[in-house]
Amino acid sequence: MHAVYLPELDPGGGRLVVEGEEREHALRVKRVRVGERVLALDGRGLALVCEVVEAKRTLALEVRERVEGARAAVRVGVWSALPKGPRAGDLIDMLSQVGAASWRPLTTERGAAGLREAKAGRLRRVAVEAMKQSRRAWLLEIGAEAGFEDALRSGDGERVVLADAGGAAYAARGADEPVRLLVGPEGGWSERELARAREAGVEVCSLGAHVMRIEVAAAVGVGVVIGCARANR
Amino acid sequence: MHAVYLPELDPGGGRLVVEGEEREHALRVKRVRVGERVLALDGRGLALVCEVVEAKRTLALEVRERVEGARAAVRVGVWSALPKGPRAGDLIDMLSQVGAASWRPLTTERGAAGLREAKAGRLRRVAVEAMKQSRRAWLLEIGAEAGFEDALRSGDGERVVLADAGGAAYAARGADEPVRLLVGPEGGWSERELARAREAGVEVCSLGAHVMRIEVAAAVGVGVVIGCARANR
Repeated sequence: MHAVYLPELDPGGGRLVVEGEEREHALRVKRVRVGERVLALDGRGLALVCEVVEAKRTLALEVRERVEGARAAVRVGVWSALPKGPRAGDLIDMLSQVGAASWRPLTTERGAAGLREAKAGRLRRVAVEAMKQSRRAWLLEIGAEAGFEDALRSGDGERVVLADAGGAAYAARGADEPVRLLVGPEGGWSERELARAREAGVEVCSLGAHVMRIEVAAAVGVGVVIGCARANR
Repeated sequence: MHAVYLPELDPGGGRLVVEGEEREHALRVKRVRVGERVLALDGRGLALVCEVVEAKRTLALEVRERVEGARAAVRVGVWSALPKGPRAGDLIDMLSQVGAASWRPLTTERGAAGLREAKAGRLRRVAVEAMKQSRRAWLLEIGAEAGFEDALRSGDGERVVLADAGGAAYAARGADEPVRLLVGPEGGWSERELARAREAGVEVCSLGAHVMRIEVAAAVGVGVVIGCARANR
């Protein structure tokens, strides 16, 4: 079933008209036909199975069923160094598949995030595609660049966990406690950063056995946090 | 520190001569110099920190220190459908980083593995590169193609876990019990395969919140199995 992203989706249902790139892609690439079912997602939890009722110049849908938009067992926000080149897209793609709620680029001593607006726009498009492919009902939020000190300061009751090979094994606490996962740059955290994190009361946890690239460490880290929370229920 | 793969490494130490591609790469690409340290790995757990003592035509090393070759908390073997094109390499690369012990291509109803020898050779080279990059002391083993019925039959005391969105949450049992993780093709397992797995007493576990590509599901699955085993200790 093809999925379309409609940020202005009306939960009331009725007739929906798909426009712009989503229409082009559905008609020209996916060649959806009248009578076919497509999944409409608003990126904020609403998922509607629809029937195509017009597929010539206009692409129109009629809502047939509201489905449960599955959300990960625990809300995980990743703050990480920005991987180089196309690997930034791989990061967003994998974080979407594994069920992270959000991502923010993080500036560290050994690597500035430096996310320019054009690149942020490309990453948002990657998040939309990944949402459709992985049938998430929530779009991965891409946040503003942050500094290391901001990353240490918890907000919204988040448990802040800094991923580092030298840390203890990660263990889930409450099943629903949201987690903010900090993932460092390729060269690792500096000694000063590690000391500052401990001083600020941030947990330092090891989330893997070996050295991992940023995008793999981030995706696997989110998987471990979600998997351990589910095992705890 | 640059890493070299020397399958015939002698734990007794002494002078080591690096030849072939490993020599070319170290001298021409990495430009290692006399006095520099390099890490020599035999792919079977031996990791030696060496000093470069000759770096012209001959690349010779002298062993300075034997280091602990970290191994993942639990031995995980992945049997999975073969991803298409370059994604097969991504699978091997990510499984190496996350700490899987081995991988075997699995033929399922919705996808034949069909791993040809040339491709298997390329994947073995990816495993060697990933081992060096992630400082694993063990090379990811790439096994022979297997059929679905073989995959269900446990050997070597392995706990067999089939990853499927419809399964229960995964929970670690003994901290050291080896796990065989079965990951299905893009189209998912067939109803018949799921019924056969349950009949054979294989656990069906869900290792993620959303639909994932084979390589992401496999890497995240291994991360969850290792992460939960460590949390249990």
